[in-house]
Amino acid sequence: MSDYPSVNDLTLEEKAALTSGTNPWSLGNVADKGLPNYTITDGPHGLRKARNTESMDVEENVPATCFPPAAGMACSWNPELVERVGEAMGEECIQEQVAVILGPGVNIKRNPLGGRCFEYWSEDPYLAGHTAVGIVKGVQSKGVGTSLKHFAANNQETDRLRISATISPRAMREIYLPAFEYIVKTAQPWTVMCSYNKINGVFSSQNRWLLTDVLRGEWGFKGIVMSDWGAVSDRVAALNAGLNLEMPPSNTDDQIVAAGKDWRIPATQLDEMAQGMIDLVAKARPAMSRDGYRYDVDAHNEVARQAAVESMVLLKNEDATLPVAKGAKIAVIGEFARTPRYQGAGSSLINPTKLTSFLDALEERGVAADFAPGFTLDDAAQDPALTEQAVTAAQQADVVLLFLGLPSAYESEGFDRTTLDIPAKQVEVLDAVAAANPNVAVVLSNGSVVSMPWRGRAKAILETWLLGQAGGAALADVIFGDEAPSGKLAQTIIDDVNDDPSAMNWPGEEGRVDYGEGVFVGYRYYDTFRKQVTYPFGYGLSYATFDVHDATVAKTGPRTAEVTVTVTNTSDVAGAETVQVYVAPPKAKVARPVHELKGFAKVALEPGESKNVTIALDDRAFAYWSERFDDWHVEGGTYTVEVGVSSRDIISRLGVEIDDDGKIMNLDEWSTFGEWLDDPIGAPILQHVLDDMGKEAGRPIIPDSALMVMFLRSMPLRSLSVILGEAGEQVAANLTEAYRKATA
Amino acid sequence: MSDYPSVNDLTLEEKAALTSGTNPWSLGNVADKGLPNYTITDGPHGLRKARNTESMDVEENVPATCFPPAAGMACSWNPELVERVGEAMGEECIQEQVAVILGPGVNIKRNPLGGRCFEYWSEDPYLAGHTAVGIVKGVQSKGVGTSLKHFAANNQETDRLRISATISPRAMREIYLPAFEYIVKTAQPWTVMCSYNKINGVFSSQNRWLLTDVLRGEWGFKGIVMSDWGAVSDRVAALNAGLNLEMPPSNTDDQIVAAGKDWRIPATQLDEMAQGMIDLVAKARPAMSRDGYRYDVDAHNEVARQAAVESMVLLKNEDATLPVAKGAKIAVIGEFARTPRYQGAGSSLINPTKLTSFLDALEERGVAADFAPGFTLDDAAQDPALTEQAVTAAQQADVVLLFLGLPSAYESEGFDRTTLDIPAKQVEVLDAVAAANPNVAVVLSNGSVVSMPWRGRAKAILETWLLGQAGGAALADVIFGDEAPSGKLAQTIIDDVNDDPSAMNWPGEEGRVDYGEGVFVGYRYYDTFRKQVTYPFGYGLSYATFDVHDATVAKTGPRTAEVTVTVTNTSDVAGAETVQVYVAPPKAKVARPVHELKGFAKVALEPGESKNVTIALDDRAFAYWSERFDDWHVEGGTYTVEVGVSSRDIISRLGVEIDDDGKIMNLDEWSTFGEWLDDPIGAPILQHVLDDMGKEAGRPIIPDSALMVMFLRSMPLRSLSVILGEAGEQVAANLTEAYRKATA
Repeated sequence: MSDYPSVNDLTLEEKAALTSGTNPWSLGNVADKGLPNYTITDGPHGLRKARNTESMDVEENVPATCFPPAAGMACSWNPELVERVGEAMGEECIQEQVAVILGPGVNIKRNPLGGRCFEYWSEDPYLAGHTAVGIVKGVQSKGVGTSLKHFAANNQETDRLRISATISPRAMREIYLPAFEYIVKTAQPWTVMCSYNKINGVFSSQNRWLLTDVLRGEWGFKGIVMSDWGAVSDRVAALNAGLNLEMPPSNTDDQIVAAGKDWRIPATQLDEMAQGMIDLVAKARPAMSRDGYRYDVDAHNEVARQAAVESMVLLKNEDATLPVAKGAKIAVIGEFARTPRYQGAGSSLINPTKLTSFLDALEERGVAADFAPGFTLDDAAQDPALTEQAVTAAQQADVVLLFLGLPSAYESEGFDRTTLDIPAKQVEVLDAVAAANPNVAVVLSNGSVVSMPWRGRAKAILETWLLGQAGGAALADVIFGDEAPSGKLAQTIIDDVNDDPSAMNWPGEEGRVDYGEGVFVGYRYYDTFRKQVTYPFGYGLSYATFDVHDATVAKTGPRTAEVTVTVTNTSDVAGAETVQVYVAPPKAKVARPVHELKGFAKVALEPGESKNVTIALDDRAFAYWSERFDDWHVEGGTYTVEVGVSSRDIISRLGVEIDDDGKIMNLDEWSTFGEWLDDPIGAPILQHVLDDMGKEAGRPIIPDSALMVMFLRSMPLRSLSVILGEAGEQVAANLTEAYRKATA
Repeated sequence: MSDYPSVNDLTLEEKAALTSGTNPWSLGNVADKGLPNYTITDGPHGLRKARNTESMDVEENVPATCFPPAAGMACSWNPELVERVGEAMGEECIQEQVAVILGPGVNIKRNPLGGRCFEYWSEDPYLAGHTAVGIVKGVQSKGVGTSLKHFAANNQETDRLRISATISPRAMREIYLPAFEYIVKTAQPWTVMCSYNKINGVFSSQNRWLLTDVLRGEWGFKGIVMSDWGAVSDRVAALNAGLNLEMPPSNTDDQIVAAGKDWRIPATQLDEMAQGMIDLVAKARPAMSRDGYRYDVDAHNEVARQAAVESMVLLKNEDATLPVAKGAKIAVIGEFARTPRYQGAGSSLINPTKLTSFLDALEERGVAADFAPGFTLDDAAQDPALTEQAVTAAQQADVVLLFLGLPSAYESEGFDRTTLDIPAKQVEVLDAVAAANPNVAVVLSNGSVVSMPWRGRAKAILETWLLGQAGGAALADVIFGDEAPSGKLAQTIIDDVNDDPSAMNWPGEEGRVDYGEGVFVGYRYYDTFRKQVTYPFGYGLSYATFDVHDATVAKTGPRTAEVTVTVTNTSDVAGAETVQVYVAPPKAKVARPVHELKGFAKVALEPGESKNVTIALDDRAFAYWSERFDDWHVEGGTYTVEVGVSSRDIISRLGVEIDDDGKIMNLDEWSTFGEWLDDPIGAPILQHVLDDMGKEAGRPIIPDSALMVMFLRSMPLRSLSVILGEAGEQVAANLTEAYRKATA
């Protein structure tokens, strides 16, 4: 970096210029001082580099491999696979001279109606962090930057540019931040993108607590923070909060210069923000200097295919309907088989290098099939002729592959869905087809959860999410049994959106959305409150069968443990099982989810093969965020380590004794009688004081009544006099005095 | 009041003294200046005047009529009956020289586990306000004061002295304040008691917004505010917030004197608070001067009996199991028949003037019955001999009256319940008895909702809540058909407390409870989100049958209407039906409950009789609290007026066109494209600007794409440039300029 200027070499004006883009898709560019102009582009599941930055037309984008969006890739539970995708994207960035690709987006899927669920990873922060990290590692291994987004709490599209998310500190720390935290700590993304929305009243772009105290201070982030496109309302406030880069430029560098001159921006702050930009450009330079680099289009298409294979989740498979037997007469019904829905709309729209539909894949394989479109993808009423044609095709087939899903107009960045239902006319076709031939395997294409009240009429359901450009080939691999499906749900499937814990607060109103469900998001709610779901978090079938056995847990430190377990493929086909480790706390001082995902391992196994896996649990696996301590807190006790294959299919439950972290609250006159009774130091002192006073008074100070003790439990010492009169005042005084002496 | 001093006659010390009690149960007492010392005592369903203020022993209380606690009386849906109860309590206050009786408590039953649900009225603020107001009117008609409590948001017992309730302004205004508001505005209680808890971080006792701005400023309250016992943390802050009276006294008048001297308390504020106390004493004087007054104990017992009759809710009555036929051989099983649970524990514990158990009532009637206690009311394991005895009694009877419920240790002021279940041993007895004789009528005694997973094994269920001292006689009246039950549920019955919308936030932790369900409390949640309940709000059977017919609605003003309906008793027994009017809003700008109770009328009818009733709907019936306007807001549109006999048994749905109240938000650069599109003034201006700019540019400014328009809808004008480039900036500038001109 020696040939790069330091911030000390720059004028105030040059520093200011660095904190804003040079055009909507580039940064850097202080030419006089040797800083080049570098391009950044949208991601996150492929490169969206516009030929013409004025246009939103996908055809105007440079071709790039369209990998499966995150909703699918998360279901792979395979960080290594995701990393291979990241490596491929990094190579495409080098060829296209893109210094930073914008992604991954690791916002939590708070409600399945969220318009951008297709490009987010999970309802669970552990899974989101531990899968999406692969993108960052992979891309950055090629010397290209990523942008971890949207930091933070951009969990809906409705009013996203103005809305304030009201979130408790605990929900923020346990649900909405950990995916960011994990990736920052383990992979140091070159950049983080702040979100549009406000958090508890403060725009993320101007939130110093978020961008500086937490991100840099607590987590040790070394890169730069850029704004989401148009997220900056007050540039001076944003820069002071820790935002290095405003995108796109608003041509207001003069504001920064003026604020720098009159010290509304401290010089050290502007220097730090500008130096971050210099460092970023310096980091990108080696990769951006590789002229003539060309990536391998076919190899990347193959990575996309493998990612697509592992994205699919087999939800149901009665009578082993899938895979389709060789020689079976097949009817393929549904427009999606011909016109695949392979990605979502908005800033992530990729112009693919090639595109294989399922029909294309059949042709490539030389498999004959009777195709009927069944329905159109527009809003037109169902054409009875299409239904009739579908029924005829179904009648003549051994097995029907029925492609259903959400047309592209149903989900996009920019707006939220209003229903979980697929279009009624598709269900109409399902009903007609299933009546004609019960051997129906439904293949679903959708970016986020859809309801399945019709699922009884399908013998098999393969949820494919959005499969990217190689989805057709990948689907054929799975449907014909060349690959066994191995995806596991990263989001709970429910039939009624009213069952979602955020339903009462979705999508907010009058500029505010209350995250009223707190930490009880997704399976944390359904499992804790014992609610029915359609398919639980972590669920997914295979063509193979597995035995998960001999699970043990061993303590590795005061607040850490290690799980070992053996997985055996008990079938005669190859496949992969994902072992999931949930931790269930003992009775706690706060309301905790009944269990939370804290580890997983995907295990690929040949027929009959066994493998041992080891899954480490760090102290975070047992902690909750205590608002009282303003810190993580581990209570001591016997935690249950659950080893399973979905959040509702737990195979082993193992106890492990975890030590308390020793954090204690001091007792005082505001502490309740109950808190004194329950405190290891307070209880004996209380007993002693009451005994002494009782002896003196010749009668018990606390009436001997269970109901009275119950009543007193919630009373702070300072209020005891309301019940006990002057004796109450005396208890409070004696007790706090004795405690002070004992703890001095 | 001429012989009373004015505040101007008092010294600073005397003013300070007036703002605190003279002892734990009295106030006033500036003897030198002619102000007497007056007693106040706990209520709210009878007088709890202690002989010895140091003791919590109920036997030490002066005898008084124990009326049914509010949980029952609310189910009467009969404000006139409640007023008669209030009149009786007022008379008892005169005899006992009590100037103010502490009650009614109109806090919302946010969750059925709330320990004090038995002394609160409803989950619905309209019903709570319109029934509890009878207590205030009745008591005060006798020249004695009431204390409307606990103001506000004291909806749980857990940590009630410290916890901060985080409540949105809208939920506060629509759910937690309206019962207080209605009673203050229509009945002017002499006093209001502030709650222990904090609201959004501020102790109610120190909350000037609550005690002064809202209570006095907006609602016109003329009386005094006193603290709940021990609720004052900082006396100076409390007095400045608008608290007239600290109870019990903390002997800290010197703090007030000092703060008065150095102006930390403005002189006008101290004068206002002290003058309120003088006025209160003056108002009480006439009634307190009636030496030798004696109330009619028997007449009051009769009022208590009638209140008990109307408190009962008949939930189920297969095969007309109730009333019990004359001459039927009866088995009475359950300890509650001998040892009635007739009130709750805590500050409301009354020492009754007499007490009639159901067995007593049978004896008075000369009805023979075989009694078996069935179970004990303690925690001891079930005694098989008791079960056996119960079974034997059941076998020999035509009909079994099985008394089940919550032992008194299960619910009390001071702690919340942890389960909705009745003790398992009682269900065991039910199972055994029902197996021996299927003709089982369960009579329930409980202060708040209990689960009824066992309800299939009972042919009839009579929910009696807590019936007060005359409950035994009232029960006999209902069970033998002298009176038809007419109660309707004031709280939804559910079987699983996990179904409650506050379950995720109950009872809070680390000093805070988030009211995350917002306005969706009780049936507002169950009905809006279409959740199963055991018995819905407003539900209750009679021995009579009714036809509710010929409902009409007529507009009486721009935002008011009147419902008329005819009720006919179609049976051959007398009874009463309660017609309920719910208002269902059209699609609104905020998430509104699917319907809300806005009027009701209880109609007593002889066999074959018909009556017309008229129910007025004021503008509040159509309004929601808009945080943006910081005011009530009525959106124009067609509202549906639902006339029914429970929240889920709607008989007529009538449309009524309500005028908009004309409140509008001005549009600006922060308004979204969608808000401009939807605004009656903004939309044509937008169209005009886009047309003009399009003509000039020779191409449409907004690409002709439904998806694009959907995408733009949530974007503020100021952000359009992110998508539209410079044209976006131009649209924003032209539009805001044109709007300013149009609305200038």
